[in-house]
Amino acid sequence: MNLEEVKFDERGLVPVVVQDAESGQVLTLAYANREALERTLETGYSHFYSRSRQALWKKGETSGHVQEVLEVRLDCDGDAVLYRVRPRGPACHTGEVTCFHRALSDQAPHPPLGEVLERVYRQILERFAQQPEGSYVARLHREGLDRILKKVGEEAGEVIIAAKNADAEELAWEAADLVFHLLLVLAEAGLAPEDLARVLWARHKP
Amino acid sequence: MNLEEVKFDERGLVPVVVQDAESGQVLTLAYANREALERTLETGYSHFYSRSRQALWKKGETSGHVQEVLEVRLDCDGDAVLYRVRPRGPACHTGEVTCFHRALSDQAPHPPLGEVLERVYRQILERFAQQPEGSYVARLHREGLDRILKKVGEEAGEVIIAAKNADAEELAWEAADLVFHLLLVLAEAGLAPEDLARVLWARHKP
Repeated sequence: MNLEEVKFDERGLVPVVVQDAESGQVLTLAYANREALERTLETGYSHFYSRSRQALWKKGETSGHVQEVLEVRLDCDGDAVLYRVRPRGPACHTGEVTCFHRALSDQAPHPPLGEVLERVYRQILERFAQQPEGSYVARLHREGLDRILKKVGEEAGEVIIAAKNADAEELAWEAADLVFHLLLVLAEAGLAPEDLARVLWARHKP
Repeated sequence: MNLEEVKFDERGLVPVVVQDAESGQVLTLAYANREALERTLETGYSHFYSRSRQALWKKGETSGHVQEVLEVRLDCDGDAVLYRVRPRGPACHTGEVTCFHRALSDQAPHPPLGEVLERVYRQILERFAQQPEGSYVARLHREGLDRILKKVGEEAGEVIIAAKNADAEELAWEAADLVFHLLLVLAEAGLAPEDLARVLWARHKP
C-alpha cells in the first residue's frame, strides 16, 4: 500500500473511477481523501469522501449496497484512482446499476462484450428463478441439463456449418447462439462468466 | 446533444472517464470544458481540456492515437461524463494501453471477462501474423480452418462430458477451451468479439 504516489488536489482529494470488476461497467465517479483510500485498502470495501457532506463515507453503509474492492489502481500521473469492485446492489442512489445511465450522444451502440455477457447471464438466472410463461430459457431449464447440452452440441455444429459456408454474418449469429447456450450450462452448474475469465486469464495472461 | 444538464465546476470543467467500448477497460480520467464536449459530440473524436496547458486538445492530435467516440454518457448528478471510445493506439503517453497501469493494492485479480476475451483475441491475431515457433495458435492457423472447426466440435463434446460429470472446475476449464477455439474461428473469418456483443445485444437488450 504505497499512497506516497497519489497526488491529492488542493482539497486533499483524488477522483475515483468505480468499475464493476466482472462486467467491466463503469459505475460511478466519486472522490477519496487519503483516509478514504486507506480505509478502502484496509477493509476491502469502497470508501469515499463526500464533498457535499464533507465526510468520509462507506458505500452502502445505509443502503446495504456495499462494494467489495478487488483491486485499486493508480493512473500514470498519480492523480486518478480506479476501484475495481464487486457490487452488492446498484451503484446509483436512483436504483440504477450505474450512475452513468443518461446518454448525451444520440448513438446508442451495444455495450462492451463483457457487460453484454454479464447481463445475458443475469437474465438467465432471473428466468430460472421466475419461470415466466413463454420463456425459452425457463423451458430449457425445466427440461433439464441433457436438453441444454444437446443444444450445445447442435449450436457447435451450426458454427461449423456457418464457417464452412464462409458466411461471416451467419457465423456471428451461430457463435452468439453457442455462447448463449454455454452460459446456460454454466448457470446450471453454478458457474458464472467470471469463471471463464479466471481460467482464460490463468492460461493467457501476458 | 443536451449539454444543459452538464454541471461544470467552478473552473468550467467536468471530469471525463474514458472507457474502451470493446474491451470495457478504463483508459483515462481527463477533463472537458463545454467546448471540448461540443467538439467531441460534433466530430466523434475525443476532445479534452488540458488543465496544465489551459487549452482544448484532441486526443491523438500529435501522436495519431485518436479515440473514436461511440457514445457519451452523463452521470446521475450531471457532474461526470463517460466517453465510450474505440482507441487507435495506446491511451497513455507512456505507451501503455491504459493510464491506470499501476496497482495500489496487493491483489491482482484477473481482469473482467470482456477485457480478457479482447486480449486473448488480440494475442490470436498476433500469432496469426507473426507465426512464432512452437505457438499452438500459429500451428492451427497453418493447418487451416477445418482443423480449427474439428477442435470446436471436440471442445463442445468435452463441455458436455464435464457437465455430465457434474464437475464444475472441469466444466469451467472446458468451457474456456471452447470459447478460446471459438475466438480462433471468429479470427479466421475476420470477425471479432465485438460481433458477438452486437448479435447478443440485438437479441437480449432489455
